[in-house]
Amino acid sequence: MTRPTRGLLIVFEGGEGAGKSTQLRHFAAMLESQRVPHVCLREPGGTPLGTEVRRILLDRGSDIEPRAEALLFMASRAQLVERGIRPALARGEIVLLDRFFLSTYAYQMGGHGLPESDVRSANEFATGGLVPDLTVLLTFPFADGLARAARRDVVHDRMEAMGDMFHERVSAAFQDFSRPEWQRAHPECGPIVAVDALGAAGEVSVRVTTALAARWPTDFPSVPWTSGDADAT
Amino acid sequence: MTRPTRGLLIVFEGGEGAGKSTQLRHFAAMLESQRVPHVCLREPGGTPLGTEVRRILLDRGSDIEPRAEALLFMASRAQLVERGIRPALARGEIVLLDRFFLSTYAYQMGGHGLPESDVRSANEFATGGLVPDLTVLLTFPFADGLARAARRDVVHDRMEAMGDMFHERVSAAFQDFSRPEWQRAHPECGPIVAVDALGAAGEVSVRVTTALAARWPTDFPSVPWTSGDADAT
Repeated sequence: MTRPTRGLLIVFEGGEGAGKSTQLRHFAAMLESQRVPHVCLREPGGTPLGTEVRRILLDRGSDIEPRAEALLFMASRAQLVERGIRPALARGEIVLLDRFFLSTYAYQMGGHGLPESDVRSANEFATGGLVPDLTVLLTFPFADGLARAARRDVVHDRMEAMGDMFHERVSAAFQDFSRPEWQRAHPECGPIVAVDALGAAGEVSVRVTTALAARWPTDFPSVPWTSGDADAT
Repeated sequence: MTRPTRGLLIVFEGGEGAGKSTQLRHFAAMLESQRVPHVCLREPGGTPLGTEVRRILLDRGSDIEPRAEALLFMASRAQLVERGIRPALARGEIVLLDRFFLSTYAYQMGGHGLPESDVRSANEFATGGLVPDLTVLLTFPFADGLARAARRDVVHDRMEAMGDMFHERVSAAFQDFSRPEWQRAHPECGPIVAVDALGAAGEVSVRVTTALAARWPTDFPSVPWTSGDADAT
């Protein structure tokens, strides 16, 4: 088999404390052990510009209107797509991404109540129409997530500090994304697989690996991976 | 007559070296002498967030993709609209704004070639549909503008440093905006009056004042000003 000309974009999503970053690291370690070329990126951030924008967005001293906030996330995304994601995909690598579309939908649409059609078109502008090959959505009951986030015992950033009502709306949005009807109505988000995030990180990791193996049953986790649209760039 | 509940948004636009800022200052001084409540704002900037974004955008060390650049301008705009422009309009003040939609259309669409429909919808998202009451478009031949900009003898910022081809496209776009057909196709930009920017600043200033007086013939420049959509907020 020949090396695919395009890698895969796999996104990890979920509310605060869902364990996205931990699960992404576990999966990256597995890819590393199998010598599968991959890159780990996160939003906001992932580029020098993104890091500057991330600092503004997460600084608790920043005072930002919801629309401006959404557009800053989009600016960071546009830079990351062009400089980080597309080049890695073109090299045939697996891109593991911590947050993407669904976070925007959850925080800016669900949390702030910005209109869906506006956010959707701004997002399409930012990504140039890039669609993830798979999004792993880590799900858990709302109360448990807040407790997890609190246990992390770090200074909360501006997004985390937005209050319980905001985070309830965000959590409700994330739960909505696991519904098949929602997914059918949002083809721009690509396929989404919901994974139960309750339990020890190791247990959840097994669920994540199982879900990914189910998506690519014949060649997981060895290269070459095949994508549904291997010819796209 | 009662005080209008909504002020006026008057935008000054034009290519590098057209004298936007000078003309805006002249007009503000005239308003000041007439004791007309007004505020002067500029893009990008005008708010603490906007100032941070402006620094990133204009820093020659920044390396920014065209889409990310457009979205950063939009983020600054969204913040300025909510925090600076709408509150001033609600107080019944005249807002004099240095750059707005047309600069995005000229630089990001004309200069970088981003798709019009995308820029237009992102812009609508940023402004929440706010339309200027009048845009004063300062026009001049391309070569003359470059010469003017060069004579300013300041260190060029990232946008100014983009090269002659880029600025030729920007200049062509600005010239396009003075065409009635273009204006009819872009109702989101509001009414535009082209003013010849060639000559001494004082001469141009007379032309600007004349153009504004023609737009509001009965009550210029005294308050209360009346707007075409005084009920809009």
